[in-house]
Amino acid sequence: MSLMNLFRRSSAGSATAARDRLQILLAHERASINGADFLPQLQREILEVIRKYVQVDDQRVQVKLDSDKNLSVLEVNIELPAVTDRRAAR
Amino acid sequence: MSLMNLFRRSSAGSATAARDRLQILLAHERASINGADFLPQLQREILEVIRKYVQVDDQRVQVKLDSDKNLSVLEVNIELPAVTDRRAAR
Repeated sequence: MSLMNLFRRSSAGSATAARDRLQILLAHERASINGADFLPQLQREILEVIRKYVQVDDQRVQVKLDSDKNLSVLEVNIELPAVTDRRAAR
Repeated sequence: MSLMNLFRRSSAGSATAARDRLQILLAHERASINGADFLPQLQREILEVIRKYVQVDDQRVQVKLDSDKNLSVLEVNIELPAVTDRRAAR
């Protein structure tokens, strides 16, 4: 299964139609269990970068972090206004 | 299937043992087909952010972009030196 299908499937059935969505997955697999986990800090900086390109409403950002011994997975889901909305808001 | 399992599965069977891996997936689902696709620019800036935290060897970065009408998926795979290697290199 390609990643395209994965994302397509995960967003199927969502209610709203007129919004763009941005999904970010960060996975850090550590060879040593002593490795520092920098994903939470990274997440904040990546959100700052995204804000340069699109308007992000903090209330429409969902962040989930799963961690175990050697693997951390950070999932960030952002709902963006659709392009037509963004133009109307200017 | 959880995302943890997805990443775990995708990295199983890889040859090298002593490296950390960082995988980044960015999916932009556009409500309008006229929406600008900013993932390629975003990718460059995200790599810059990651370089603040870890040493990234350009030769160990794989980037793949899949795009169609309403969905773009950017996949970045980075092999990092394991923590012990990074310490040894200082």
